[in-house]
Amino acid sequence: MVNLDKIKEYFSGKIPNNMLERGQVVLNNNLKPLKILFEQKRVPETPWNEEQIELLLKILSQMDTDKDTNASQVGEREARIASPLHLKISGGFCHGVGRSGFLTAPQPKAPGGSIMYEITNYLARDIMRNFGLPNIKAAIIAPVATGMSLALCLTALKPDGNGKDSKKKRTVLISRLDHHSILKSIDFIGLKPKIVQGKLFGDAVRIPIEDIEDSLTDNCFAIVSFTSFFPPREADNVKAISKLAEEKNLVHIIVNAYGVQSNEWMRMIRSAIDAGKVDAIIQSTDKNFLTPVGGALIASPSEENIEKISKAYPGRACASPVVNFLISMLSLGIEGYNNLIKRQQKNRKLLEDLLIKFAEKINERVLDIFNPVAVAMSLQNLTKKKLYELGGALYNLRVTGPRVYDPKQKEFGTCIENYPIPYIVMNAAIGSTKNDILTAVERLERAYSQITS
Amino acid sequence: MVNLDKIKEYFSGKIPNNMLERGQVVLNNNLKPLKILFEQKRVPETPWNEEQIELLLKILSQMDTDKDTNASQVGEREARIASPLHLKISGGFCHGVGRSGFLTAPQPKAPGGSIMYEITNYLARDIMRNFGLPNIKAAIIAPVATGMSLALCLTALKPDGNGKDSKKKRTVLISRLDHHSILKSIDFIGLKPKIVQGKLFGDAVRIPIEDIEDSLTDNCFAIVSFTSFFPPREADNVKAISKLAEEKNLVHIIVNAYGVQSNEWMRMIRSAIDAGKVDAIIQSTDKNFLTPVGGALIASPSEENIEKISKAYPGRACASPVVNFLISMLSLGIEGYNNLIKRQQKNRKLLEDLLIKFAEKINERVLDIFNPVAVAMSLQNLTKKKLYELGGALYNLRVTGPRVYDPKQKEFGTCIENYPIPYIVMNAAIGSTKNDILTAVERLERAYSQITS
Amino acid sequence: MVNLDKIKEYFSGKIPNNMLERGQVVLNNNLKPLKILFEQKRVPETPWNEEQIELLLKILSQMDTDKDTNASQVGEREARIASPLHLKISGGFCHGVGRSGFLTAPQPKAPGGSIMYEITNYLARDIMRNFGLPNIKAAIIAPVATGMSLALCLTALKPDGNGKDSKKKRTVLISRLDHHSILKSIDFIGLKPKIVQGKLFGDAVRIPIEDIEDSLTDNCFAIVSFTSFFPPREADNVKAISKLAEEKNLVHIIVNAYGVQSNEWMRMIRSAIDAGKVDAIIQSTDKNFLTPVGGALIASPSEENIEKISKAYPGRACASPVVNFLISMLSLGIEGYNNLIKRQQKNRKLLEDLLIKFAEKINERVLDIFNPVAVAMSLQNLTKKKLYELGGALYNLRVTGPRVYDPKQKEFGTCIENYPIPYIVMNAAIGSTKNDILTAVERLERAYSQITS
Amino acid sequence: MVNLDKIKEYFSGKIPNNMLERGQVVLNNNLKPLKILFEQKRVPETPWNEEQIELLLKILSQMDTDKDTNASQVGEREARIASPLHLKISGGFCHGVGRSGFLTAPQPKAPGGSIMYEITNYLARDIMRNFGLPNIKAAIIAPVATGMSLALCLTALKPDGNGKDSKKKRTVLISRLDHHSILKSIDFIGLKPKIVQGKLFGDAVRIPIEDIEDSLTDNCFAIVSFTSFFPPREADNVKAISKLAEEKNLVHIIVNAYGVQSNEWMRMIRSAIDAGKVDAIIQSTDKNFLTPVGGALIASPSEENIEKISKAYPGRACASPVVNFLISMLSLGIEGYNNLIKRQQKNRKLLEDLLIKFAEKINERVLDIFNPVAVAMSLQNLTKKKLYELGGALYNLRVTGPRVYDPKQKEFGTCIENYPIPYIVMNAAIGSTKNDILTAVERLERAYSQITS
Repeated sequence: MVNLDKIKEYFSGKIPNNMLERGQVVLNNNLKPLKILFEQKRVPETPWNEEQIELLLKILSQMDTDKDTNASQVGEREARIASPLHLKISGGFCHGVGRSGFLTAPQPKAPGGSIMYEITNYLARDIMRNFGLPNIKAAIIAPVATGMSLALCLTALKPDGNGKDSKKKRTVLISRLDHHSILKSIDFIGLKPKIVQGKLFGDAVRIPIEDIEDSLTDNCFAIVSFTSFFPPREADNVKAISKLAEEKNLVHIIVNAYGVQSNEWMRMIRSAIDAGKVDAIIQSTDKNFLTPVGGALIASPSEENIEKISKAYPGRACASPVVNFLISMLSLGIEGYNNLIKRQQKNRKLLEDLLIKFAEKINERVLDIFNPVAVAMSLQNLTKKKLYELGGALYNLRVTGPRVYDPKQKEFGTCIENYPIPYIVMNAAIGSTKNDILTAVERLERAYSQITS
Repeated sequence: MVNLDKIKEYFSGKIPNNMLERGQVVLNNNLKPLKILFEQKRVPETPWNEEQIELLLKILSQMDTDKDTNASQVGEREARIASPLHLKISGGFCHGVGRSGFLTAPQPKAPGGSIMYEITNYLARDIMRNFGLPNIKAAIIAPVATGMSLALCLTALKPDGNGKDSKKKRTVLISRLDHHSILKSIDFIGLKPKIVQGKLFGDAVRIPIEDIEDSLTDNCFAIVSFTSFFPPREADNVKAISKLAEEKNLVHIIVNAYGVQSNEWMRMIRSAIDAGKVDAIIQSTDKNFLTPVGGALIASPSEENIEKISKAYPGRACASPVVNFLISMLSLGIEGYNNLIKRQQKNRKLLEDLLIKFAEKINERVLDIFNPVAVAMSLQNLTKKKLYELGGALYNLRVTGPRVYDPKQKEFGTCIENYPIPYIVMNAAIGSTKNDILTAVERLERAYSQITS
Repeated sequence: MVNLDKIKEYFSGKIPNNMLERGQVVLNNNLKPLKILFEQKRVPETPWNEEQIELLLKILSQMDTDKDTNASQVGEREARIASPLHLKISGGFCHGVGRSGFLTAPQPKAPGGSIMYEITNYLARDIMRNFGLPNIKAAIIAPVATGMSLALCLTALKPDGNGKDSKKKRTVLISRLDHHSILKSIDFIGLKPKIVQGKLFGDAVRIPIEDIEDSLTDNCFAIVSFTSFFPPREADNVKAISKLAEEKNLVHIIVNAYGVQSNEWMRMIRSAIDAGKVDAIIQSTDKNFLTPVGGALIASPSEENIEKISKAYPGRACASPVVNFLISMLSLGIEGYNNLIKRQQKNRKLLEDLLIKFAEKINERVLDIFNPVAVAMSLQNLTKKKLYELGGALYNLRVTGPRVYDPKQKEFGTCIENYPIPYIVMNAAIGSTKNDILTAVERLERAYSQITS
Repeated sequence: MVNLDKIKEYFSGKIPNNMLERGQVVLNNNLKPLKILFEQKRVPETPWNEEQIELLLKILSQMDTDKDTNASQVGEREARIASPLHLKISGGFCHGVGRSGFLTAPQPKAPGGSIMYEITNYLARDIMRNFGLPNIKAAIIAPVATGMSLALCLTALKPDGNGKDSKKKRTVLISRLDHHSILKSIDFIGLKPKIVQGKLFGDAVRIPIEDIEDSLTDNCFAIVSFTSFFPPREADNVKAISKLAEEKNLVHIIVNAYGVQSNEWMRMIRSAIDAGKVDAIIQSTDKNFLTPVGGALIASPSEENIEKISKAYPGRACASPVVNFLISMLSLGIEGYNNLIKRQQKNRKLLEDLLIKFAEKINERVLDIFNPVAVAMSLQNLTKKKLYELGGALYNLRVTGPRVYDPKQKEFGTCIENYPIPYIVMNAAIGSTKNDILTAVERLERAYSQITS
């Protein structure tokens, strides 16, 4: 093959040697991160630039057989494409990922794509280990988002797939969390959810461990617990649930949707792993790692679990969610991710401070709920009609993402029956800017005064 | 907003008017296909060029709120991205597709992405109507490949999701087809497959309709039938199965994996729809429409079915498979797809002719099996060892996709017990070139002579 | 640096070895053309694909010091850029080409850019040698178009730049060719043109060698001759001029603007070189090699001349014209350029046939003028007003490039005083399609009937 | 054409109206800068993002006739291209700029390209007015760099191009500035330079106005003065020269190579314009505006001068330098350019501080020379050999751009005969980073100790 070290030789005599050497030094400098990545298979300390990332993707994708101009392709699926634009959308990996329903199985037609997926899964493990879960053994980037990933985990880990005993064991215990995808994912795979209701503790909604324990029946084979969600729901006591799971030998899956950004939530998971049984932890790649929607990072303290999960997927899948995660890791690096987390913490603090001030002005209060990302403020002084108007006004002012809740109109979202007061929730999530926070509260004030004047 | 018709006005006096008018004419000429697409929502007659496709994607993706520089983004999921490279991989649609587990539900944060998906699904219906299935009512591009799409369809259409009666109705009748993804997809959603064995008819393996009928039990709620597969398995008698499904009120799903390229397979499906009950037809986007791996086109004679299927998906999904299908449709057009099909037919003919000639030389024969894509040739004169060597030799000669089968060593793939003779299968699939066919047979001859000399 | 041959080692054990080997084979296959290019420095036989071209540009541009993330850049010019988009527009070569007014001098800050220019100039020589001028010794891609390149050549080759004798020798003999750029280029460098008038030979306008000889004065130091132009002007007798130049020791420059596409014009130049004195031959990169406007290929039988020309350029220059030519050579290859030329010849024939037929219908005739690219047809039956209208009608019908000439209204363009009849010229130039020719004549007929009915 | 305002209409009923409206709002928000640019033709206040810039380039380039799929192209030059990659390198403007040797003449085949150039030249004028020269009337982006632009200006403004009187008037007065391109550019166009020597004023080299005056002869028709250069040469007294030019009716061109970044140099030019005669001011686009090498911004207090300059260019030219400048202006905006300038000032200060400290340590001193970009430090204690080694050591440490000067070895660069001491020059130019400055001085210290220990 082309030996890049020989460029000097090829042009010696035509270009001065010291210049050629300098060129080689710069080229090597730019290619060195690739070498380190191949050797260490870890998230780089410092960010790569776009050129470097594109070069990596190009080199690997040029190993796949659909790029082989000397091949005779007589299969029915050869990753033929109709337009060069398809190369962009897939990062060059037209064969997707997976083989015969085994996500991480190397695909003989796609050696480059297989290497790409292999590296990516190492980076997935590494980023989790670096940011709170050193007790993780393996991880995989699922080519589907959080909801479908939960289905994947539950199906993969249910007791002896088609055995007789397992017919009864079709119930999954869930600490109430009002998100449609969760319930749909359980329904999707033909299981039955058993939901444990939330209870009020001051402003916060929690699901007491005793209630969970009491809800257990013989049909339950798994329990799903949660960290990140929006107020008034607080994170589950995953450590206690983990102990319970161990004691009762339940499959225990933690949905840590956007929890990687918070070292507090991560610490909870870490001790849950240490204290009992955690089978898989699912996190969204877009909400935690700033990729486009479509993938999830599934981590586990058990390599065997990850293998089972990988084997449960029926067929092949789109490579894009995997490529997107890889791009995020390389373009951020440990350093970049650290910076994002620090900024998130500052923004979260700022959001709370601003809302406390505003709440005072309008005789409301910031609710006392533990949440490292979101802040909730009461809206007791607004009528049903005004609450509705406030939502509309914020939409028109281009504030995206706030939730105005009137529990009397709609219970779903509160995770409890009869939450006492209306409220608004705002997030200072990873990737948000100071300007987002400042203008959001400013516009909230404006919207509030519009509807109340 | 910028009124492109006004460009003339802005530069009048500075650039001669007739030139500005000419520029406007050319610009309009290039933008007209976009207008027609928006109005007609059909696959264009003639191909678009890359620039036009990119412009469409850019305009639509610029409508999504993550592109709103004046927004205050305080949600936990705002389609923030770590790198501009993510825009490429997602076609600009960072919000993915779907909302709360309803794939086609418009996503308020992604008006552009929602329009994109809406258009794409219209094109999916249109291409199916144009190429054999005028009796289709709706279609959707599933953001998952064929295997997972089968799971999606079965789950969506199973009788009253969580009802009591449905507990028993958990069996799916399958005419034997040896593909792991099919079986995994049924397992994935907690259903039980009941497989009807293949029988020999001359060289061909078929599953007789009587056997299917006899296999029916009360627990069966669905039957899955198949068109495209590789020899010796022939397509199912989907028309007869369709009648049976109607009679017994079964859910009937046709897996038409790479069947759109053949008007013969499509004609079979068309009459199946007309004659009885077909609930959904699943086809791979990569194998039929030359996209990267990752999506499936699900079509149905019932709009309601497509809606149910859309609603069964748990959560949101990656937009890339959808964007890829859109790109294929626009870059090919009806004309381009027609050309691909014509070339496929020629290549299929060529492949058969070449294999007949070669078979004669080596005292073998082309098997008598109906298949518009693949051709199989007997390899009765080779020993077990030589058969194994032949596969290796072809691999080394860079022939991708051929299948050398020795039924005595491995039954899976023959779809029958004890298929009498070893054979090789080659495909002249859509997108293959004449050169693929010529060199593949040439290399086969070379490989054969290598191992036998 | 990253050793691409070691990829196998890095992933051994994780990905099966035979797959890794296969990936390496495909990768090597795709990188091999780069190696061959580096070694042979010739236009490739077969076209490269886009991915390969981009990879070459990326590797080379990553050698330039502006890409060195470890450098301390304290110059006033370090090829810093405001936007990543600049990388695209320059092909990554932000340092441009040239150093202190020596175009081909290696630029210490741009080893990669220097190699790129070096290779490109070899390809320039090679394409000329392959397509008609084996007697060329050196060539250079000037970063300016034909007009400015003529200025560059004349300035570089004028007798002892600032010597006393040269003060008188400031006149350039030109066989009349009505193109503004030619005259402006001579004016630009402070020289004086002496124009030898065209004479009528049948339909054709030629400049007799005797007239050229007679026009020679002591002040003339150079003569500029021409091949490609539009009828009625025919190519100069460059062989005779070449002999004259040798005899009188004149600098002789041939402007072969778009003549590479014609083996007839090239044959004339070849024998001119062999028979006498040709100092430089200038050809447009866009008109011959399908690049965007902006560069010229200057070739010479003398290496020394090319060096002088390279040294005459004041300062550095934009790399884009150079990169564009490189892209053309790699994306076409010898094979692709041959195909383009064959198609041009067919189209030229078709154009003539169609115009002969049409001319008959309207009682006009195709003019008897030698030109391998253009065809002229008389328009004797049209009045001044109708001639004017015809031009407008063609413009409105989107025929670009035809020239309707009424010598009574405008002499410039005919290259002669009092050309007897009006006419229209159309080109079947390299890169034009059969459809261009067919529709152009069709629309001409339509336009003609519009204005005459 | 496609009416983007109608998107709502096309999808009404399928996508909720409020969502469509929101999408329209975001789209309008993103397209608004285009509208403002078209209307105001000024550098935007705030930066555009890449997507917006690409959209502008795409819309305009789609107006050019080479993009007209319905055209019949029968010219010899139709901007046909061999590869889609050419679109990138040219920004889509394959027709280049200019027509028949009139750079800014609208090109009938390129209405979009013509508009692009028109806008760009307005932005060129605007950026100069905003950053120091409100008394500018017109500006143009020359598609050639500083050296060739000087040739262009001198040729365009020389007295009656081919008149008799002008034969004598062929000398250009130049205050000595040791840059090859300047001298070559004058030679290029057949003029004679008359160089006024520099004199020592403390550490600084200046060219006294009296000496310039004394050097004037009847043959001189022009004077070229300079602002930005590296120490010990200081900027010329352009105000005094301007007065002289007015008095003697000389063409006066200021080469302000990288002077836009300094409000001090710009102030000098401003008062030169006000006080006397300045015909054109030339600045490098890469050194001032962070584009790749290849263009120059020529500004003038006289619209007529700019028109003459535009008309002097022989032929058409590459569009890339123009597109690159446009990209810079849009991606920076006034705000971004202001920030760059502020950072430059800080870095310049930092560089001086660091060098003062280091100089003290090694018994040298920072030279007392006015220069807002560069700083020079004496190197009196180093021998000839050590000076040579220092340059090499810095090169090896990857410090790019420093100049180690030993006037005894090489005079060219000092702009004077017998400059008394050796020195090193470093720049804190626009676009450099704090890290550049810090590491450069650090490495200088390291290099110094290497060679002296």
